[in-house]
Amino acid sequence: MAIPSQLTLRLEIGDAVRLGPGKVRLLELIEANGSITAAAREMGMSYRHAWLLVDSLNGAFREPLVETRAGGKADRRAAVTSLGRDVLARFRAMQALAQAALAEDLAVLEAQLRPDAAPRHMRDPEHSG
Amino acid sequence: MAIPSQLTLRLEIGDAVRLGPGKVRLLELIEANGSITAAAREMGMSYRHAWLLVDSLNGAFREPLVETRAGGKADRRAAVTSLGRDVLARFRAMQALAQAALAEDLAVLEAQLRPDAAPRHMRDPEHSG
Repeated sequence: MAIPSQLTLRLEIGDAVRLGPGKVRLLELIEANGSITAAAREMGMSYRHAWLLVDSLNGAFREPLVETRAGGKADRRAAVTSLGRDVLARFRAMQALAQAALAEDLAVLEAQLRPDAAPRHMRDPEHSG
Repeated sequence: MAIPSQLTLRLEIGDAVRLGPGKVRLLELIEANGSITAAAREMGMSYRHAWLLVDSLNGAFREPLVETRAGGKADRRAAVTSLGRDVLARFRAMQALAQAALAEDLAVLEAQLRPDAAPRHMRDPEHSG
């Protein structure tokens, strides 16, 4: 198979936070761009939706994961905080640990597929699993 | 916290199949009900959507995960096959293994939440993580 089998984690932390690849990617893009606007654009997401996600995370954790400060007149700069980087690093480590622990099971499942199974994007009517 | 932290897995098997809690739940309900129609109804999903998901899984694996056979005039009975039960059991075992392996990390993340963080369903603007 051209694309190796993999897994993604979605965490439900207490009853306050869901954290999965979407929010993790948003935080990573905010860190890379220094801007919620730019991160939202890269994800094809409205600024408002991105801001609501960030606000939701910020309000659920003891300290904000993202800080904003006034920038030029058109933009506010955003930065991932120390706690935000800690959460990102932990998520990535958890993901890697799960991938390693479950590699054999994934290989068994992969061997149960038809060798000629068409790629997922050509046949799967939904993307949510 | 009233609700314990937990995680869910989404698998990308080769490049042919995504398997996560949605399809697993659908298979479980087909097994319990002996009917795609009844399973779809319980999930609030159209019959057509459920059928497309089943057809997609059936076409990707070496053998079908769900078999249908003519029933009464209004319904076709459906059953999860031996391979389908194997896939379900493996997914559940993988989920349990990941939950155990990552319990400490989940507890650390939970301790990083505000003690008074509002429940997720009251604050989270999206459900996809």
